[in-house]
Amino acid sequence: MVTRYLQKRYNIAMISSRSNQKVKYIRRLQSDRRFRRHEQAFVVEGTRWLKEFLVQPHRLKQIFYRADWAAAAENAHMLAHADVGKQSVSKEVMAAMSATETAPGILAVATVESLPIPTVPTLIVILDAINDPGNLGTILRSAAAAGVDAVLLGPGSVDIYNPKVVRSSMGALLRLPIHHLGWIQINKIVAGMDVWLAAGDGKKSYTAVDWRKPSALIVGNEAHGSSDKAQFLAESTIAIPMQSGTESLNAAMAASIIMFEAVRQRSLSATASEVVLNLK
Amino acid sequence: MVTRYLQKRYNIAMISSRSNQKVKYIRRLQSDRRFRRHEQAFVVEGTRWLKEFLVQPHRLKQIFYRADWAAAAENAHMLAHADVGKQSVSKEVMAAMSATETAPGILAVATVESLPIPTVPTLIVILDAINDPGNLGTILRSAAAAGVDAVLLGPGSVDIYNPKVVRSSMGALLRLPIHHLGWIQINKIVAGMDVWLAAGDGKKSYTAVDWRKPSALIVGNEAHGSSDKAQFLAESTIAIPMQSGTESLNAAMAASIIMFEAVRQRSLSATASEVVLNLK
Repeated sequence: MVTRYLQKRYNIAMISSRSNQKVKYIRRLQSDRRFRRHEQAFVVEGTRWLKEFLVQPHRLKQIFYRADWAAAAENAHMLAHADVGKQSVSKEVMAAMSATETAPGILAVATVESLPIPTVPTLIVILDAINDPGNLGTILRSAAAAGVDAVLLGPGSVDIYNPKVVRSSMGALLRLPIHHLGWIQINKIVAGMDVWLAAGDGKKSYTAVDWRKPSALIVGNEAHGSSDKAQFLAESTIAIPMQSGTESLNAAMAASIIMFEAVRQRSLSATASEVVLNLK
Repeated sequence: MVTRYLQKRYNIAMISSRSNQKVKYIRRLQSDRRFRRHEQAFVVEGTRWLKEFLVQPHRLKQIFYRADWAAAAENAHMLAHADVGKQSVSKEVMAAMSATETAPGILAVATVESLPIPTVPTLIVILDAINDPGNLGTILRSAAAAGVDAVLLGPGSVDIYNPKVVRSSMGALLRLPIHHLGWIQINKIVAGMDVWLAAGDGKKSYTAVDWRKPSALIVGNEAHGSSDKAQFLAESTIAIPMQSGTESLNAAMAASIIMFEAVRQRSLSATASEVVLNLK
């Protein structure tokens, strides 16, 4: 019933063939980084993402939904309020469009839009050739939670609009300034900041760093370590002291632990200034 | 050549049929938790794991290897030194035995063996219904790196010998006391310790906790929160203060950040006592 109403209202027929041009377009956006860049667009899957984009509706390009998804009143309501092309698709077509094993009820095309880097950043995270999409997404999620000013991705990083990165970033993608850059540009942005390179054999404990100063943290690829360029940029290496005989932490864990140490130190210094104010 | 030598030496023929009983046995160990418990055995994949087990050889039950893997001198050497049944298998059989998409050159059956929990533990991590295998493996890896005394898994947890947990734990499985237990047993073990429950809406900041005291940290399922039993066990809830508007951290991130805060506080107190000693 709802489907028929929607089809009538938007004057569209359900796509039920996987060889439809739109299916091919979505599949290419999901799998081809260059095509995403060319189109300046990427795909988001699931109701949560639709909600995220309803607050910045100009970024939505097209919505594809399954009839059974739109049958829920809340979903139909959201769909009705999204001022963008809407296309009903069959279950099989949704499965073909989706990058996940369990296809969602809704999927949308959104435009790429980078938030600007603050003029005077106080904490920047630089990722050096992080190429595991799940790791990258998790780092973005932690960085957003830690209130990092920007995440800069050096050469050799997986694309932030890769479907797995999008999924594991849980919305951090929309809240954080994230930029793919070359080392020369990165160097300019972090000029004047203390730059620390996390390394398994780092010289200084990450807790001995004064994170209240404007700082940049470089996190490298677990398997291959950090590049020459990253090493050149950093004034010193830092490590997370670990129980002897254990393997290194994964890149996402190491990055999260260090970012939240910076948050901890900064909140202490905030409390200290408050104390000073109260004593006056 | 090497293969022929090995076949002659161990008097075995290569398994090349996927319907071989041993292939079925391995596949069942990979997929069936109850069968693993019944057999008190699990499967490890890859050269790294073989190396891990060569230092506790009594735990190795059988090795399956591909001829091309054994053709490398270092691998043939390891194989020759493993005093256990060795079976050469075809590429196809290895792929059928493996739980990963890219099958390894070697795979082994190892016996389950739990390390004892220290009599006077100072830091215990309790996992409440963590059912994502990758998350569990990552938490184990971080816990080993942080020098946690034991990890206790409450009811509803994914099995620690699940192939994905084994893979992402990176050897932590062999270094940490890890036990699947009921809440009554867990309660007994943590008697006398400060018990903290990590929760998105926790009352106290994790940095305000005195982790130098014997402490237990309960980490729950991201999606469904913590169980009544876990809440009953904890004296208070703790949270990681986050940038407003961001999603919660994933369970593995949250656990790692809190465990390493405990490590940080304990290393400070160690340094402080050293200072005291030096001043005497």
